Amino acid sequence: MLTVFGSVALDTIRTPKKTLKNVLGGAATFASIAASHFTKTGLIAVIGNDFPKKNYNTLSKYVDLEGLTRLNGKTFRYDGKYDKTLSTRQTLKTELNVLENFKPTVPDKYRKSRFVYLANNDPDQNIAIIKEFNDVRFSMCDTIEFWIQTKRNSVIKMIKSVDAIVINDEEAKLITKENNLIKSAKKMMEWGAQYVIIKKGEHGALFFFQDIIFPTTAFSLENIVDPTGAGDSFAGGMIGYLAKMNKTNLSTIKRSIIFGNVLGSFAVEKYGLNGVIHVNDL
Amino acid sequence: MLTVFGSVALDTIRTPKKTLKNVLGGAATFASIAASHFTKTGLIAVIGNDFPKKNYNTLSKYVDLEGLTRLNGKTFRYDGKYDKTLSTRQTLKTELNVLENFKPTVPDKYRKSRFVYLANNDPDQNIAIIKEFNDVRFSMCDTIEFWIQTKRNSVIKMIKSVDAIVINDEEAKLITKENNLIKSAKKMMEWGAQYVIIKKGEHGALFFFQDIIFPTTAFSLENIVDPTGAGDSFAGGMIGYLAKMNKTNLSTIKRSIIFGNVLGSFAVEKYGLNGVIHVNDL
Repeated sequence: MLTVFGSVALDTIRTPKKTLKNVLGGAATFASIAASHFTKTGLIAVIGNDFPKKNYNTLSKYVDLEGLTRLNGKTFRYDGKYDKTLSTRQTLKTELNVLENFKPTVPDKYRKSRFVYLANNDPDQNIAIIKEFNDVRFSMCDTIEFWIQTKRNSVIKMIKSVDAIVINDEEAKLITKENNLIKSAKKMMEWGAQYVIIKKGEHGALFFFQDIIFPTTAFSLENIVDPTGAGDSFAGGMIGYLAKMNKTNLSTIKRSIIFGNVLGSFAVEKYGLNGVIHVNDL
Repeated sequence: MLTVFGSVALDTIRTPKKTLKNVLGGAATFASIAASHFTKTGLIAVIGNDFPKKNYNTLSKYVDLEGLTRLNGKTFRYDGKYDKTLSTRQTLKTELNVLENFKPTVPDKYRKSRFVYLANNDPDQNIAIIKEFNDVRFSMCDTIEFWIQTKRNSVIKMIKSVDAIVINDEEAKLITKENNLIKSAKKMMEWGAQYVIIKKGEHGALFFFQDIIFPTTAFSLENIVDPTGAGDSFAGGMIGYLAKMNKTNLSTIKRSIIFGNVLGSFAVEKYGLNGVIHVNDL
């Protein structure tokens, strides 16, 4: 099976055409639901006692929730606003709430997971939790600007402790202090990542392994309404496909990158989680 | 044969590491030399009496110069400066000089060209000159922000008068007033372009024909020193390949886009024209 560890959130998303208030979101929500189209997926995350029953039901429909902890307090909340081209997002508010002091534990039945995705969590937490799995075949993590700015050394250690890093282009440049993405990927490989996947949003992704560069395009879309969760859906689709195939040879990983692009493109076509949920409704 | 009509320039290019002063450049120079690797290419352009003999010799080595006119006055000059990431260029000076009142004519032996590339010239001039060819199988034009801002209606008429428009993403958005590239391409097809190629720099290009979208990646490069002429080399490589194959079916055009990307990638790896000239030196 696949285990995903990361945030479950109540998001307020302001797009030019529509505002969604307190909707189900979070990196691990998008990643685990994207992955669930391919394979059985367990979720390690925390929610507060304000978490709506209907959101719990949505999650439970797609994902195993034995790893979901409910704590007293409010669920992690995020509020962000897109510009009119949907290409930049401004954070209006981040309330960590129950996420702040959450100590994640791995349920026994998740410990045998061969595939593990660690979303953009505290890098020290990611480093600690990956050790709790007994038989990992392929582990992958993401990170964000906040951790690069506040815990750069831990992020570098985290990159060493997993097989693959999946990261946005701007964040790849930021952590490696390189302007060129090939140089940036090489540096992350020197730090210990065996595989590097650099996400370029609407321009697709670059995959690096040894001296191989495998560039992919994103699926071209005419109607993009909400980019939230696209990168998380990419990562979930990618590792979900790998887990389904239970293979990590090069051609399977290349194919998984294509599935990542496809899941990312589904995510942005509808508001909130709707795109990544309704993949089979075409 | 292929005919290319456009500017030959003496460029001053300021990059973070090196400044080139009054070197051979211009859209038609890059496009025709890129094309010359595939097919016999004739150049319609104008130079001044200050044009150095060594530059003339360089051009004559790759391109047929019967269409090159020398006028009294100075050659078109351009002076631009790249930022430290090489992603944006600021124009410091543009001197049209002999280009200003140039009335291009098509030499008899060029009139039978089956393939014609009109670079980012005055759109009215492009519309007029395409009529002077007797048996065109595939014509393609480019345009730039200056013409979109000053002669938008003429640019739209120009797009109608050729088979294919090759254009940068930002300029495609500007002329069509659309933020989405698919919507933008559809509008240009409504205006009469049969084929639309939108260049995205380091992210490759999108090709549109009827309801087909063919996305391509650029060749990933670790060392980029001078982006000047990349788009022109793309167009030249693309139409040069088509002219060599003497075919315009869909799979040949798709393949030509790949060659366009490859020639564009050669262009940026060395300073000035060196990249696109030394394609065979690997």
